[in-house]
Amino acid sequence: MSQAFRWTRRVEFCETDAAGIAHFSAFLCYMEQAEHALLRAVGWSVTHDLGDGWHLSWPRVHVECDYAGVARFEDELDIEVRVAKLGNKSVTYHFSFELKGNRIASGKIVAVCCRVASGKPLASVAIPMELLTRLQEYVEETPA
Amino acid sequence: MSQAFRWTRRVEFCETDAAGIAHFSAFLCYMEQAEHALLRAVGWSVTHDLGDGWHLSWPRVHVECDYAGVARFEDELDIEVRVAKLGNKSVTYHFSFELKGNRIASGKIVAVCCRVASGKPLASVAIPMELLTRLQEYVEETPA
Amino acid sequence: MSQAFRWTRRVEFCETDAAGIAHFSAFLCYMEQAEHALLRAVGWSVTHDLGDGWHLSWPRVHVECDYAGVARFEDELDIEVRVAKLGNKSVTYHFSFELKGNRIASGKIVAVCCRVASGKPLASVAIPMELLTRLQEYVEETPA
Amino acid sequence: MSQAFRWTRRVEFCETDAAGIAHFSAFLCYMEQAEHALLRAVGWSVTHDLGDGWHLSWPRVHVECDYAGVARFEDELDIEVRVAKLGNKSVTYHFSFELKGNRIASGKIVAVCCRVASGKPLASVAIPMELLTRLQEYVEETPA
Repeated sequence: MSQAFRWTRRVEFCETDAAGIAHFSAFLCYMEQAEHALLRAVGWSVTHDLGDGWHLSWPRVHVECDYAGVARFEDELDIEVRVAKLGNKSVTYHFSFELKGNRIASGKIVAVCCRVASGKPLASVAIPMELLTRLQEYVEETPA
Repeated sequence: MSQAFRWTRRVEFCETDAAGIAHFSAFLCYMEQAEHALLRAVGWSVTHDLGDGWHLSWPRVHVECDYAGVARFEDELDIEVRVAKLGNKSVTYHFSFELKGNRIASGKIVAVCCRVASGKPLASVAIPMELLTRLQEYVEETPA
Repeated sequence: MSQAFRWTRRVEFCETDAAGIAHFSAFLCYMEQAEHALLRAVGWSVTHDLGDGWHLSWPRVHVECDYAGVARFEDELDIEVRVAKLGNKSVTYHFSFELKGNRIASGKIVAVCCRVASGKPLASVAIPMELLTRLQEYVEETPA
Repeated sequence: MSQAFRWTRRVEFCETDAAGIAHFSAFLCYMEQAEHALLRAVGWSVTHDLGDGWHLSWPRVHVECDYAGVARFEDELDIEVRVAKLGNKSVTYHFSFELKGNRIASGKIVAVCCRVASGKPLASVAIPMELLTRLQEYVEETPA
């Protein structure tokens, strides 16, 4: 059975805006940070070394966020990450933000597995089999 | 006939990341900045004063961005803003990012018109008629 | 004997720049975050409520940072905070950043204790006696 | 006679904080952006290409800022940049921020001229003679 990866993030002062709340763009950064925390949790490096000067990079091709509430300075956000879709070359993550048990936002990131080397153009590559295996337990179950 | 609002934004160094490109979250901030530039262009203040300590605020209920290319330090982005939907209490903006004539990203923001006062809860209100009128020329035409 | 407050901060991807390192401005934000973590550690709220709609705020009158090394994505920074000077109305914090035992940066923030209320001008006030007492253990000892 | 480089920067909403003002760290980014605008103004690229995969980079070894006032959303800041010291391998910039004629902040950046190439350690190098010449007109005069 699949599980969600859980991560907690406190809203820092520099992330608030003059409306007194966490700026909407902060949630996009929180999502990426939670994604990276998940990769670390499965023992994987975001910038996995491929040898010969090449390493992995995960450019985003789509991001989105829906807001149902607000977060303020020092609020502790409970973030759940699920792998909505594990493709051959891309991962779709779903994120849910709760504040004291209330869902205040949910979002999505679609990241493409690419190899990069200095001065070379970015090229999409197959996600390493080992990472596919490690992410498997976070893949959302599709209702039958 | 409707027109797009055009705004130019140079990628600053602090907005790039270790992949050597503008961080994906920067595009969300560029969108908001272009939205605010549009409001200034029609002679309107984002935080329009309603009197008696109340003023307008525009919390976002949805944002999204699709990325088809990258932008680097000092690149000049040509941003087009269109009003996709002008509701009674909300505005949906569409954004298109071009770099040297190539579309590299497109996005969307749905902002809700609210009134705020210190210590009072945020409440959605009707968009002032005057602003509705001023935004009219940027409303996207729906194909017949 | 005085002690330092210790706090750990991982460099997030959005804080890096195209030079492949944490942007210099990130260190200033880390300092503020460590300062706020210290205040929480002594059981104090940064935005302490003074009643009647007033609360505390700590505008900075001076900040500085010296850089001796670099930090990269996912590096864990060990930050030490000391109270260099505890005035009647201001606090001077000293910060030291270590990465794997090597000092890579050190900085300073001078924050002034102010009271704020909506629509009222900011005014400096005496630091509450209780906070002075709680911060005492972090005051740097001056060599005799 | 020396002159200052003048640059204008509007405070964007995402740069404000819950105290309703531009976050103190934003001023550090404005300084860097004004420095880069100065380099562009003298026809120089911040990341000047040195050939063979090497290019210039300007890590900061010291930054500081003194705050005498605040800036709010949409305020237009008039920034003056002067070259306080033009060394063989480093440049010290002075910055002054005015809002409607009132000085609200002043700051300093010391940047070291380095050459970088992918996977190679950063090394300080002499500032190219051509850049030294171009920056000369912005060097602050020392009182006799």
